[in-house]
Amino acid sequence: MTENRAGRLTLPIETGIDEEVRALVERLGADAVRNSDGTSLPDWVDRGFAKVYSTYFPARGDEEWADMSAGERIHQYLLSERRTAPPSGPLVIDVMEGWFQAQFRPDTDCEVKRWWQVIDRTAGRVLDPEEWEVETAGPRPLVDPVPLVGPLPADAGSALVTIAHPEALHVYTVSFLAVQIWDSTQMYNYLTNDWALDPSRVKERPYDVEYPRTWAHVKDALAIWLKRNPHVDVVRFTTFFYHFTLAFDSRGRERYVDWFGYSASVSVPAMEAFEKEYGYALTAEDFVDAGWYNSPFRPLSPRFRDWIDFTSRRVADKAKTLVDMTHEAGREAMMFLGDNWIGMEPYGKHFPGIGMDAVVGSVGSAATCRMIADIPGVRYTEGRFLPYFFPDVFREGGNPVAEAEESWRTARRAIVRKPLDRIGYGGYLSLALKFPDFIDRVEAIVAEFRSLHSASGGQLPANTRVRVGVLNAWGSLRTWQTHMVAHALWYKQIHTYLGVIESLAGLPFSVEFISFEDLESDASALDRIDVLINAGAANTSFSGGPAWASEKLQHTIREFVWNGGGFIGIGEPTAWIGEAADRGSTTPASGTVFTLSDVLGVDREISWSLSTDRYPEVSPEHFITEDLGEEFASGEDPGDVVALGARIHRLEKGSVRLATHEYGAGRAVYMAGLTWSAVNSRLLHRALMWAGGAEDEWESVLITTNPQVEVAWYPQVRRAFVYNDSDEPQEARILGSGLVGGAEGAQDEARIDIAVSLGAGESSWLDL
Amino acid sequence: MTENRAGRLTLPIETGIDEEVRALVERLGADAVRNSDGTSLPDWVDRGFAKVYSTYFPARGDEEWADMSAGERIHQYLLSERRTAPPSGPLVIDVMEGWFQAQFRPDTDCEVKRWWQVIDRTAGRVLDPEEWEVETAGPRPLVDPVPLVGPLPADAGSALVTIAHPEALHVYTVSFLAVQIWDSTQMYNYLTNDWALDPSRVKERPYDVEYPRTWAHVKDALAIWLKRNPHVDVVRFTTFFYHFTLAFDSRGRERYVDWFGYSASVSVPAMEAFEKEYGYALTAEDFVDAGWYNSPFRPLSPRFRDWIDFTSRRVADKAKTLVDMTHEAGREAMMFLGDNWIGMEPYGKHFPGIGMDAVVGSVGSAATCRMIADIPGVRYTEGRFLPYFFPDVFREGGNPVAEAEESWRTARRAIVRKPLDRIGYGGYLSLALKFPDFIDRVEAIVAEFRSLHSASGGQLPANTRVRVGVLNAWGSLRTWQTHMVAHALWYKQIHTYLGVIESLAGLPFSVEFISFEDLESDASALDRIDVLINAGAANTSFSGGPAWASEKLQHTIREFVWNGGGFIGIGEPTAWIGEAADRGSTTPASGTVFTLSDVLGVDREISWSLSTDRYPEVSPEHFITEDLGEEFASGEDPGDVVALGARIHRLEKGSVRLATHEYGAGRAVYMAGLTWSAVNSRLLHRALMWAGGAEDEWESVLITTNPQVEVAWYPQVRRAFVYNDSDEPQEARILGSGLVGGAEGAQDEARIDIAVSLGAGESSWLDL
Repeated sequence: MTENRAGRLTLPIETGIDEEVRALVERLGADAVRNSDGTSLPDWVDRGFAKVYSTYFPARGDEEWADMSAGERIHQYLLSERRTAPPSGPLVIDVMEGWFQAQFRPDTDCEVKRWWQVIDRTAGRVLDPEEWEVETAGPRPLVDPVPLVGPLPADAGSALVTIAHPEALHVYTVSFLAVQIWDSTQMYNYLTNDWALDPSRVKERPYDVEYPRTWAHVKDALAIWLKRNPHVDVVRFTTFFYHFTLAFDSRGRERYVDWFGYSASVSVPAMEAFEKEYGYALTAEDFVDAGWYNSPFRPLSPRFRDWIDFTSRRVADKAKTLVDMTHEAGREAMMFLGDNWIGMEPYGKHFPGIGMDAVVGSVGSAATCRMIADIPGVRYTEGRFLPYFFPDVFREGGNPVAEAEESWRTARRAIVRKPLDRIGYGGYLSLALKFPDFIDRVEAIVAEFRSLHSASGGQLPANTRVRVGVLNAWGSLRTWQTHMVAHALWYKQIHTYLGVIESLAGLPFSVEFISFEDLESDASALDRIDVLINAGAANTSFSGGPAWASEKLQHTIREFVWNGGGFIGIGEPTAWIGEAADRGSTTPASGTVFTLSDVLGVDREISWSLSTDRYPEVSPEHFITEDLGEEFASGEDPGDVVALGARIHRLEKGSVRLATHEYGAGRAVYMAGLTWSAVNSRLLHRALMWAGGAEDEWESVLITTNPQVEVAWYPQVRRAFVYNDSDEPQEARILGSGLVGGAEGAQDEARIDIAVSLGAGESSWLDL
Repeated sequence: MTENRAGRLTLPIETGIDEEVRALVERLGADAVRNSDGTSLPDWVDRGFAKVYSTYFPARGDEEWADMSAGERIHQYLLSERRTAPPSGPLVIDVMEGWFQAQFRPDTDCEVKRWWQVIDRTAGRVLDPEEWEVETAGPRPLVDPVPLVGPLPADAGSALVTIAHPEALHVYTVSFLAVQIWDSTQMYNYLTNDWALDPSRVKERPYDVEYPRTWAHVKDALAIWLKRNPHVDVVRFTTFFYHFTLAFDSRGRERYVDWFGYSASVSVPAMEAFEKEYGYALTAEDFVDAGWYNSPFRPLSPRFRDWIDFTSRRVADKAKTLVDMTHEAGREAMMFLGDNWIGMEPYGKHFPGIGMDAVVGSVGSAATCRMIADIPGVRYTEGRFLPYFFPDVFREGGNPVAEAEESWRTARRAIVRKPLDRIGYGGYLSLALKFPDFIDRVEAIVAEFRSLHSASGGQLPANTRVRVGVLNAWGSLRTWQTHMVAHALWYKQIHTYLGVIESLAGLPFSVEFISFEDLESDASALDRIDVLINAGAANTSFSGGPAWASEKLQHTIREFVWNGGGFIGIGEPTAWIGEAADRGSTTPASGTVFTLSDVLGVDREISWSLSTDRYPEVSPEHFITEDLGEEFASGEDPGDVVALGARIHRLEKGSVRLATHEYGAGRAVYMAGLTWSAVNSRLLHRALMWAGGAEDEWESVLITTNPQVEVAWYPQVRRAFVYNDSDEPQEARILGSGLVGGAEGAQDEARIDIAVSLGAGESSWLDL
């Protein structure tokens, strides 16, 4: 198909290999080129050659301005180490202990008694400002080995907080406002790539657009840059104003990372403006959150929710100004999804109004692919694929072809369901050129990608009629972003739940993310949903924790299921023991740990019901287990779960791993966890169909007999795209009956049953 | 040693094999004989032959009285099934659904509106009595297979509770007072032994001494019995008035069992007396506890604590009356520790005043052995050993010798530290006589048992100077009884913690059980303690749950450790998240899940600190790990634990399994769990010595180089008892230096180093 030979591809280019670059751009049909971090575009590249992207950093990189705006740095709230007061005498806490002195210094120029807090963590008491004193101190001696970063900045230093009369043996902390004296991403690159060895490098100090002088400068700087860079078509903002929370320790190692963290978007003027608008003042504790820093796993506090909204609104306002300037200069504005993206959450309500043309982000999984592809309010999206053209992979003995294939297979599941508009690569093209096999493979991948736009007739494949809602504290704001700590990295505590999102990203369901708050305020959101999923560990924002204390929320969901809806609980869904542990209360307890144990038919055993005898009987066979082996790889043990009326389908060491339950006219499924695998994805697929009462429509959008092979049905063009998700050859049969949305929208009567045989990772288009 | 040939042994005897019985009693040197359940003593047995025990049941077995006291049965609070109200219309709950109709019937004769409760579990609301009605109903049809129990009692039946206008889709329960129409233990024996096939058997209905007529009858009956049974020396009360909680389901299977349960000691007159005395009324909810029935794992409620004390005091009063009568008749009073023992907890404060002569109990482990041997306020204790002389073991192919050996090896660890005064066997002697090997083995065991009394000079072996306190909600009341559900049975959720108690029961430490309440009211209890242990799962009475909200408790322990004390936390010690999950609070959170994370140097990760990077470094070598292999069998995973300053000695899947920490002048040890094994016991031994600052005194009461071999040091006679705990031959060296309590109380200077070689389970006395 010739239409698959050009477009939709961005390549990194560099100076010095002009001929090869031109040839490759032509061969691969790239229609856009970009520079990378540390490379620049060749002089000959102009808008006639291809669309030109250029990175742009609004709030860092201008060290001249940084020198002129010493009081307008980015701030971040940090918590000191926890220190125990001696049996008698004062307690002195050096606030910078444990933090990286090249990254932060305490802000002792602000009104310390107002913006810092000293807290007795044992008593849960904020000390009166008269109870402690601060004195500034020089940098702490470097005792531990730290990586090469060059000399500490001149303004590095610490501060000592003295509590003259602490309570004996109470634990104290100091929450202090710190100045970021080094941009987090640049610092990361610096440390990772030994840039300290390069004398031309300068540590970049970010500045805060909250300060009017800096904001005026940032606007002026963009205006000048746009004029000076007429060859640039697309301003790739990398990103805007505030970095996600990333703090290093005294040895120069990452100490805290939260891809969603709003800890570094804080400043005194912002907090003052917040108080004026919301009628209450934020405190240091609202940011440091006793050391948990409002991790996305924490149940959401109303104050932190306000802060997110406040920050997002103000960031959006300013971003819109820059985007408008970009448009006025006849260019496109593209946002990189990461780094300084705080306040720019693309599913937030303020985002569409910014008028961003495009979002580009790194694709590490099907879920991150959907996270980019589904963003509303932009004209197009682009996914940056792996491998990055860096020497770690593009070296002798490296296997960039295998990495490219795996990356493509992983992302393809999502791209089929909701195609990205473009794909791209990053790094040094000169490295990739040394691997002709790799170039061949990229050519094939790009052609396959284009076919998903062209052979499909530009249509999305058909979904089953079962509409899925993922229920947690974050709802649509964090669409496709549940259970992430540091972007797409693996953590022991999350892989049990990430499989849910990863599976959904490639399954034929419309998926919506709904918050507890949404349902509290308006249950009609459930009119758009057939099956709700609640997945997560107890007391997290994802499972819900205290959100389940709400009778209204409980009622909304019970009514939904009772009337025929589906509910899938994974891990410790709806878990909340509330006051049941503290037996001073006279309010009768619910009697179960899972608030909706009546809906799920299972409950969590936390040693309180050991005296109750259990006689679990297992029925391995069920519609939902038809493609599951004997073992169910449910991931980390969420703790013991017992059946209260559910039918058990998998049991391990006496604990329920998989069960189904009927409730009124509705259905519920419990899973102990759902790590990512093709077989588990199929289990979720079946569970959604069953819970949605649609098991008779199993073949309605085509289905395969082999979970490793997936199929997408494009009714408008009567074509099917069938693809092998595995790195082994696979055989499968494609089944279809009662196909939805046939050529005339009517259901077909003939049954489809086609055998296919696909090589590792291979795909194929079938005309039906 | 001839003194080991007679005494301290009780044998069961029976009619019909007089000669063999006489010969065996003489050969084994038994000085007491007893009947068993279902056997009677031969006529020729009198007090001249041996001491004669006879079982006695004060509150059941007199069916004539049961007929005459229909209104004075034992009662028990039960909770109906949880039922969801339909979207509209009334909800009817059949209260007996799921309960065994041969065991219970609802008490609809009491003032139902006062003593029953209907609770909306969704809203946490007790319904007004006007909101529901009760009507009695006949027995439910038996739909499920039930074991043979004969016809249902004439008074069996159920009751229907109708809630006319329930809240739609709320979950409701009925807490109802039920009448026990069949004694729990007799029912158990009936079902287990198919006694329904024996037409002479009658189902026994227990009666409640709370009713004055019944109480008068019980006293009279004992007086008559004592007169009629002049040959009986020892009245073996089996037991007193109230059975532990044991309820069966509609299919005649055990449904709820709590060896400590006070649910069946309730009656209307008792509750009325309670209200008069305590100034508040108990409700059904105080007993059913939302379905958890005050399991010993539940954090303790003040009201339930009051009920235990109230019941114990009243039971003790009445038991004392019967014991006094027994004494006046010139007999001894012995209590069987089990069955109807509620209110007779032998470590309770009312127990010693009863004047019981002896307690006999079943020995299933070292801990249960110590539970009996350490009972204060009695003249002697007796342990009933396994195997029971029953056909399940004493059959062709059975191996009673192996069972006897294992039972002895297990109990011996405890008996060495605190000898029982007597041991005994139960069952049918005629069966045992068919196994001459078994009789030989029993002869040897009994001789070894006697040697622990004689060769030791009647002294206890020396303990190290480290005194241990086990800290939980129950304290001394449940000495040696932590983490038990149904006596000595294995449960997945407890074996991780039972190893602590099982190890301690045989280690050379003085051990005391202390409650949180003890420390709240008077910290001086810690003057008697060198190392505190807190072991258990989060939110249980054993770990503490809400008890840790007390600053005073925290301070007491911090001060204790800071000043040089030791603290060993196992599982989820001191865990309490309190309000930290519910973020509406403005009280700053502690910031850790383990309240004493500063003491322990570790904390529990519940997904709230995933954003914090961890760099665990493992130091496998430490004084406490010297006898531990590479793997540490810590049992079930208590959840992820991270280091906050502790030295990690064992790490598994990124989670701390074993760690040590210094705090002020004191020391702390964290263990993920401690299942029972010789190696784990040795780990605890070392951990206690280290935490107690006594690692230099490791050899002070003798120690072996092989954890499978233990040694006890008797300074007064300068003898050592060395014993192989395993069923394999073992080699070991016995080491001693700085021995405590030598002949003149002075420490020896010479180092002891003796090689020993012991056959499977073998022991030996050494003169030093």
